[in-house]
Amino acid sequence: MDQKEYALIVAGGKGTRINSKLPKQFLALNGKPILLHTIEAFFNYSEKISLVLVLPQDDFGIWQSICKEFKFNKPIILQTGGDTRFQSVKNGLDKMEGEGLVAIHDGVRPLVSSDLIGASFRLAAVHGSAVAAVRLKESIRITDQDTTKAVDRSKFRLIQTPQTFDLQLIKNAHQAKEDASLTDDASVAEKAGHKISLFEGSYENIKITTPEDLVVAEALMKSKLV
Amino acid sequence: MDQKEYALIVAGGKGTRINSKLPKQFLALNGKPILLHTIEAFFNYSEKISLVLVLPQDDFGIWQSICKEFKFNKPIILQTGGDTRFQSVKNGLDKMEGEGLVAIHDGVRPLVSSDLIGASFRLAAVHGSAVAAVRLKESIRITDQDTTKAVDRSKFRLIQTPQTFDLQLIKNAHQAKEDASLTDDASVAEKAGHKISLFEGSYENIKITTPEDLVVAEALMKSKLV
Repeated sequence: MDQKEYALIVAGGKGTRINSKLPKQFLALNGKPILLHTIEAFFNYSEKISLVLVLPQDDFGIWQSICKEFKFNKPIILQTGGDTRFQSVKNGLDKMEGEGLVAIHDGVRPLVSSDLIGASFRLAAVHGSAVAAVRLKESIRITDQDTTKAVDRSKFRLIQTPQTFDLQLIKNAHQAKEDASLTDDASVAEKAGHKISLFEGSYENIKITTPEDLVVAEALMKSKLV
Repeated sequence: MDQKEYALIVAGGKGTRINSKLPKQFLALNGKPILLHTIEAFFNYSEKISLVLVLPQDDFGIWQSICKEFKFNKPIILQTGGDTRFQSVKNGLDKMEGEGLVAIHDGVRPLVSSDLIGASFRLAAVHGSAVAAVRLKESIRITDQDTTKAVDRSKFRLIQTPQTFDLQLIKNAHQAKEDASLTDDASVAEKAGHKISLFEGSYENIKITTPEDLVVAEALMKSKLV
């Protein structure tokens, strides 16, 4: 039997890196808020997905206005974010029960494709985890105080989302005490002793964190529409 | 006294990663070949720069047509590329003599700014090397066969060009025997025993290697013009 599929969209960021009072997930990308593009990507993948959106309490009102303005009426579950990404994900997981798989995804990665989401669920069903990752296009160096040394870039992967897991596995992993090394859900699962499976992400699946990223995302989105 | 400033533009790639018969450095970016944008960026930085362009012999004709079509008549020195980037750079360095500094730069990084070029020369004058580098925006993992492990991304830098060096230092370093670990000029200089100095590159200074990169570069370039 196919497992139940959840999506957990983390949109807790305060947008401090983009010069805008509006949190960055609400900025318009080709006329529509970034976050709405992201959420629609998951419903485009499957109308049956159970989606939990984690937002700072202060932003619930903005989200509701957006739903009204863009006539968005899919059934989603809103949850209050925490002070950190770790806490926000944990809050989101609290809304999910029983057996299943959960794709945890950044609210500011609106270019995620249905193929990528589908691949993450299929692989997580087999391996317990499926974390989107891409190879480095550029050389990489490791730095330590005032020294720097070339390292073999073929051994490294840049990590994206979705990061998809067996639901109970990632819920249990989030019982751990938070620490600064837990920069994503893969590291949380890894700390709990799970082996992490990577799969091929996409260079287009960018995270919008700067004004330049927004320009880039608009161009990529337009190039896909043509 | 200010040192003589050279630029060495490496445009030897055959464009195998972009679905096009025309080598990628000649593809149009907002109506003008990528490589011409790159070269103009160096003349925008300084009209006095001595620029060596390294191209496959087969592409000399294309370059000459471009110069004609776009009425480009700055004094540049053409040099034949080798089978590898290492060899192409070495051939380019053969055209430069005496004291000075050389900024080695990818032909397919057309968005390099005058500020970035200027910073690289100033720092290389002091430290012997100045290599553009940016912090990682995403988590990173190291992989080894079927295992993968989170690493601290704050310790890593993605390496760009320009990579600017004292001319004699980098000419001497290129006397070494080529091997697969020498993926850029910084690694060549490092292997010759020199300490590499990094400086802050720019996320906009992208290397165009895929069709998506071209879309992104056009958008970034247009957003700078407005």
